[in-house]
Amino acid sequence: MELPSKLVENAVNEMAQLPGIGKRTALRLVLHLLKQPLEQTEGLTNALATMRKDIQFCQTCHTISDAEICGICANPSRDKAIICVVEDVRDVMALENTGMFKGVYHVLGGKISPIEGIGPSQLKITSLVEKAKLGVITEIIFALSSTMEGDTTNFYIYKQIKDLAIKTSTIARGIAVGDELEYADEVTLGRSLLNRIPFETSIRQ
Amino acid sequence: MELPSKLVENAVNEMAQLPGIGKRTALRLVLHLLKQPLEQTEGLTNALATMRKDIQFCQTCHTISDAEICGICANPSRDKAIICVVEDVRDVMALENTGMFKGVYHVLGGKISPIEGIGPSQLKITSLVEKAKLGVITEIIFALSSTMEGDTTNFYIYKQIKDLAIKTSTIARGIAVGDELEYADEVTLGRSLLNRIPFETSIRQ
Ligand SMILES: [Zn+2]
Ligand SMILES: [Zn+2]
Repeated sequence: MELPSKLVENAVNEMAQLPGIGKRTALRLVLHLLKQPLEQTEGLTNALATMRKDIQFCQTCHTISDAEICGICANPSRDKAIICVVEDVRDVMALENTGMFKGVYHVLGGKISPIEGIGPSQLKITSLVEKAKLGVITEIIFALSSTMEGDTTNFYIYKQIKDLAIKTSTIARGIAVGDELEYADEVTLGRSLLNRIPFETSIRQ
Repeated sequence: MELPSKLVENAVNEMAQLPGIGKRTALRLVLHLLKQPLEQTEGLTNALATMRKDIQFCQTCHTISDAEICGICANPSRDKAIICVVEDVRDVMALENTGMFKGVYHVLGGKISPIEGIGPSQLKITSLVEKAKLGVITEIIFALSSTMEGDTTNFYIYKQIKDLAIKTSTIARGIAVGDELEYADEVTLGRSLLNRIPFETSIRQ
């Protein structure tokens, strides 16, 4: 695909670095922006640049936040003794939508995945284990996707906390094995949270 | 979808204004950028902003160009007497890929579409008709997509030039009716250009 303009070519190449966006789609999006008023491109580029530069992550749970401590961690009515371990902010959003969880979260930032080159050190696992050792937490709920990577990550964490006086559980598998958490409907997701089972039971199943 | 950060929310809303990008996809792309180094977002936003600000359109054929006159119009070996009328730069690229067209282009910038609120005045039709009246052009090839909008646009232009001593043709319909030009393979597209038929014949079929 030879483009008649270096400016367009650069824009297409940058766009095509986004996951799921091929060169053809990138060109379609770029040509769309060229047809729209200058302000639309400015709005998009300013929003992205500002977000990437100014974004913060909650110092307690590592979720995306506009403040040092996120709204959930800062809420005095949330039970800080119950921690739900999730992959990313989309899972926090999905679980918050159920309205059934009154504890707090711990956002790992991904799953252990040898294929994608993601090891435990790239995830927020150490801070979770340290938090667990402080003796305040009574329960840790694993709510990662039920994929091989999710199971591996759960087990990696479990090994480091199993001797502490902390109840461990996983959300009930009302959700089909292999499905992503964020696509589950609210009722299923809420129920799987209520019906959570001890983690030891889940690894024996 | 309630987002935990205004910064992310703004970025998602701007992204979701792009055609074919829903809020969920926008969030996925935005979260991806947050996981990548700052430089990736800077590369993307700079490329888009610079392109939108500095892009030029060829003063002769209106295609996207980094100069006042595009490489095709500036090429002395291209036959300026044969003009191929297309919708946008993607069609120019598709036809150039065939290597079979030695004339020049005229990029309308779209098709007449009452549904999308696009009238003749928003397209580069007047400049084509003026060019035709200069007496240099011997043939105009219509190469718009064979949709209702394409046919309407062809006919709108045809009415204004039919009394001039200019041969009019449309590219042969080796391409399925309703298909977009840019998705046609090079052989089909090249052949349909060689087998072009007089426009009068095409409207009687
Ligand atoms: Zn937090
Ligand atoms: Zn040109």
